[in-house]
Amino acid sequence: MRWARFDDAGTPRYGLVEGDTLRVIEGDPFAGHSLTDRVLPLAEVTLMVPVVPPTFYCVGLNYAAHVREVAERAGQVPNLPTQPDVGYRAQSALIPHDAPIIIPRDATEKVQYEGELVVVIGRQARHLTEETALDCVLGYTIGNDVSERSWQKSDRTLWRAKNADTFKPMGPWIDTEARLEDMETIVRVNGDVTTRFRTADMIFGVRDFLVAITRYITLQPGDVIWMGTDGHAPNLRPGDRVEVEITGIGTLSNPVTAEE
Amino acid sequence: MRWARFDDAGTPRYGLVEGDTLRVIEGDPFAGHSLTDRVLPLAEVTLMVPVVPPTFYCVGLNYAAHVREVAERAGQVPNLPTQPDVGYRAQSALIPHDAPIIIPRDATEKVQYEGELVVVIGRQARHLTEETALDCVLGYTIGNDVSERSWQKSDRTLWRAKNADTFKPMGPWIDTEARLEDMETIVRVNGDVTTRFRTADMIFGVRDFLVAITRYITLQPGDVIWMGTDGHAPNLRPGDRVEVEITGIGTLSNPVTAEE
Repeated sequence: MRWARFDDAGTPRYGLVEGDTLRVIEGDPFAGHSLTDRVLPLAEVTLMVPVVPPTFYCVGLNYAAHVREVAERAGQVPNLPTQPDVGYRAQSALIPHDAPIIIPRDATEKVQYEGELVVVIGRQARHLTEETALDCVLGYTIGNDVSERSWQKSDRTLWRAKNADTFKPMGPWIDTEARLEDMETIVRVNGDVTTRFRTADMIFGVRDFLVAITRYITLQPGDVIWMGTDGHAPNLRPGDRVEVEITGIGTLSNPVTAEE
Repeated sequence: MRWARFDDAGTPRYGLVEGDTLRVIEGDPFAGHSLTDRVLPLAEVTLMVPVVPPTFYCVGLNYAAHVREVAERAGQVPNLPTQPDVGYRAQSALIPHDAPIIIPRDATEKVQYEGELVVVIGRQARHLTEETALDCVLGYTIGNDVSERSWQKSDRTLWRAKNADTFKPMGPWIDTEARLEDMETIVRVNGDVTTRFRTADMIFGVRDFLVAITRYITLQPGDVIWMGTDGHAPNLRPGDRVEVEITGIGTLSNPVTAEE
């Protein structure tokens, strides 16, 4: 099943993707739904972010090669995480598939992407175990963790480096059947593959994070967890188009523009 | 005006505090409202957090004495912020006035409070200036930034140190007339004053943060900004009651219990 959220003449509404059409539903994937007879051509629909998360979790460093890359660039010794510490991002930065990433006027040229698997929580959960962890997962979508690297170094927090408006593309939809073990993440800039990795090659997996988080925190329906990225990304420039494809889910594609 | 949000037999609803009563309203303080004839005794109402923020901003270090305290405890040289960098907290951690702060089973004894002024955003805002900044503010409420200090040191992020369930009491209501320059923040534990400071003695003020944030980020109605704390706090223990009073707003009071 693929849950898409779209702009129905000003009202956000959910639909189910059926090939190249969208079957409109009443309700939502969290509280319950029923099918309607309305079917729209997918190509004519304006997609919205597939969910506005009550809490937006994001894993900073979760792929060994990425940790080594980041350390190397900073001239430091790689320091692999020893426990699944999660962070937070701002939902104000979310944009849907196809909406432009806008580079702020005073950003340096170091605006970079990170293709990430996104876990979407389907039901309230606390004190999950390894065995029960995945029961709370509705499905997966795709995130692009855009960062301004000079601000990431200069500021005390990641507020503008990671959370400036439009810096968090997410979509195109939520897939409930994709299998983590089959996934490959492929990032393309203007059609050229720039990054490619086995999505499951994480230091701490989805189960590990769900167990760790819910030991202290109640997950809510609609919460999202961005699972981190691998490898290194080149700078994005106005006029580029960046695509993140994950096997079994789809492709999140966004153009890049400069703030006027 | 004082906007309170309360549990109306399972439905969250807003009311206006009038002395020791609550006038129920239709609507909310953000999209518009109308008065009703229903008036409830305030003492019989179960308050909820006065707003569930789309984005929950929090200023880490914003009072000089607090920065020096934190540095001293860590055996480091105090490093005063040179620009208004804001951080994020999780709305999953919010609890209202009078709800218990629950100390997690495996927390150390170093669970501490921080009494903070909370700015509540009333309307969408981007690119604010010094002159226009306060136009987007609906009013003020009170926050208690509970932290587990050993996790704050050991973890890569503040996720459980600052965001464990119940670690963010906020309330009791939103006051739209309180004046920042008249405010004093007074924290009491079991009735004894433990911390007391001029609320306006900030390194960067409310205007500074509003201008800085909206240079890169769109503020939304209901967003909150916790403005940081001054001084040092002793450990909270099960059985304690912690109160944060701010002149002109009111008192946020919460009991402390241990996880079972």
